[in-house]
Amino acid sequence: MSRGTDTKERIITKSAELFNSYGYHGCSLSDIMTATNLQKGGIYNHFKNKDEIAEEAFDYSYNRVIKRFRKLLGEAKSPLEKLYTVIDAFASFADDPVVKGGGCPIFNTAMDSTNTHPELKRKARLGIESLITYVEIKLNEGIAEGVFRPDVDVKLFASLLIMTLEGAIVMSCVQNNNYGVQTASKFLKNHIKSELLVNSA
Amino acid sequence: MSRGTDTKERIITKSAELFNSYGYHGCSLSDIMTATNLQKGGIYNHFKNKDEIAEEAFDYSYNRVIKRFRKLLGEAKSPLEKLYTVIDAFASFADDPVVKGGGCPIFNTAMDSTNTHPELKRKARLGIESLITYVEIKLNEGIAEGVFRPDVDVKLFASLLIMTLEGAIVMSCVQNNNYGVQTASKFLKNHIKSELLVNSA
Repeated sequence: MSRGTDTKERIITKSAELFNSYGYHGCSLSDIMTATNLQKGGIYNHFKNKDEIAEEAFDYSYNRVIKRFRKLLGEAKSPLEKLYTVIDAFASFADDPVVKGGGCPIFNTAMDSTNTHPELKRKARLGIESLITYVEIKLNEGIAEGVFRPDVDVKLFASLLIMTLEGAIVMSCVQNNNYGVQTASKFLKNHIKSELLVNSA
Repeated sequence: MSRGTDTKERIITKSAELFNSYGYHGCSLSDIMTATNLQKGGIYNHFKNKDEIAEEAFDYSYNRVIKRFRKLLGEAKSPLEKLYTVIDAFASFADDPVVKGGGCPIFNTAMDSTNTHPELKRKARLGIESLITYVEIKLNEGIAEGVFRPDVDVKLFASLLIMTLEGAIVMSCVQNNNYGVQTASKFLKNHIKSELLVNSA
């Protein structure tokens, strides 16, 4: 890796942590300079402005989320195990953050950018929609294999799973305990067992 | 109302809107000066620092949330109607914000303050816990009246209701539509009908 690429990646990583902690408006270029130990010119060598940094920082955070999913799902075998693992992966954000600052960086960006930053909002919306699609795929795989009932409202349950776990992550982070994510996980898993599985019908 | 009280309230209202939109770190004293059309001295007449403003702004936002609940619940009669109205009140945050900037200011503060501002985090945590207690009271009233099953896990369902709706509010805000809050509301109401009501047992 060249020194330039190395510096660019360091700017992105540090900025992602700052944006995830303090929000887009709460993180200035001078904060990024301090965190990276770079002068303004050293940053402008790689990015034309703070917006460009914020957008690449979001992509970096999004990829960290997906990496966590892929890593955990690599070990899951059956469709039920895969769906449970998706839930566990979300729950893990509460005490093992994917990006410093905690929580889910995609929802953090969504909350931070609504009404203040259209481009970040667009990226956060696409990020959330891709998480929902990810769960839909796992559900559809299970339906195709005859494990989940064919009449499951895939879009509804995928959205519900994401919303419930995201609310739970915020609650667990603010309460400094796992009650929120554990409660949400347990509820969703019970719901899957009793309402989604074919042999529960 | 004296002119001093009027100015103090204007500072709190405008600051609550700024903090709810941009977060604590994204809103400077000079942003507050611009929004209130006051000089620094005019603000320091009423508050010793930005922290004091932020804490009073949080209390203001919290009271706006509670006011929305009280207003809507005033019309509800039966325990079931009351619980449905709590859900509708949360759902209303998506397209009729209680504080400019949108979403739920309590969860917005929770997300914003975790790992960055212990006092605001403490207030957000207490705010969330009081919302949960509020739902628990409605559930317990229903149990006492024989409408809800006595074996309902009141703490679990109250937490689940809050987490699901809060996640849904973020999703609806970022998607600019009501799919999130409508899906969450419908799911929770169906769950209440099938799992909580005595006559569903």
